[in-house]
Amino acid sequence: MSQRHLLIVAHGSRRQASNDEVRALGERIGELRDPGIHRVEVAFLELAEPSIPDGLARCVAQGAEEIIVFPYFLAAGTHVANDIPEALTAFAERYPDTRVRLVSHLGASPSLARTVLEGVGEVV
Amino acid sequence: MSQRHLLIVAHGSRRQASNDEVRALGERIGELRDPGIHRVEVAFLELAEPSIPDGLARCVAQGAEEIIVFPYFLAAGTHVANDIPEALTAFAERYPDTRVRLVSHLGASPSLARTVLEGVGEVV
Repeated sequence: MSQRHLLIVAHGSRRQASNDEVRALGERIGELRDPGIHRVEVAFLELAEPSIPDGLARCVAQGAEEIIVFPYFLAAGTHVANDIPEALTAFAERYPDTRVRLVSHLGASPSLARTVLEGVGEVV
Repeated sequence: MSQRHLLIVAHGSRRQASNDEVRALGERIGELRDPGIHRVEVAFLELAEPSIPDGLARCVAQGAEEIIVFPYFLAAGTHVANDIPEALTAFAERYPDTRVRLVSHLGASPSLARTVLEGVGEVV
């Protein structure tokens, strides 16, 4: 199986704690040790580092042959529909040997409804 | 058991499709028919209807004795830390007989890491 990395792409915030929340989530996902995912990285569309190009290049430098890009967004707005795909197209032109696959954004995740109920259950 | 309603509070967007994504999620959560949740409603902090006060009042009109408020936000910024609690405080003063409980925002949900991996698995 090719070495597959997961890149979580978030919007990025001027508030560093918000960016750190995303980084912590990336670490938690990595700790789940999904057998199909070799490594998990995070990147930001703007306002935080690494950028999407830098995050993708980091995956390549770590040996990724395939990168799955997960938009950590609740809604399918312009960022999800245009900005992220454009960054991936630019990457594909520079790294034609690395397969990149964009999957649905978080807000479209089929298990999100269950996640919300579990979040409620954690506190009540 | 008291009649408990769940109010999903999202930011709200000028893009109606984004608000509709939230409304659809609310419906999916309702369809899960959690035995502890009598009814599920959504409300928006700004830019969309119903507002948080209107969403809370709707729950009361439907017979809620207890309302669980779930911030549908990825990060614990000002909206989660200040704006939503302020709206709940104002509500509590008007409706002292209705119990309102604010739970953690989506980004802090313990099962979110698993949700992301499941989202990846849906496509790869």
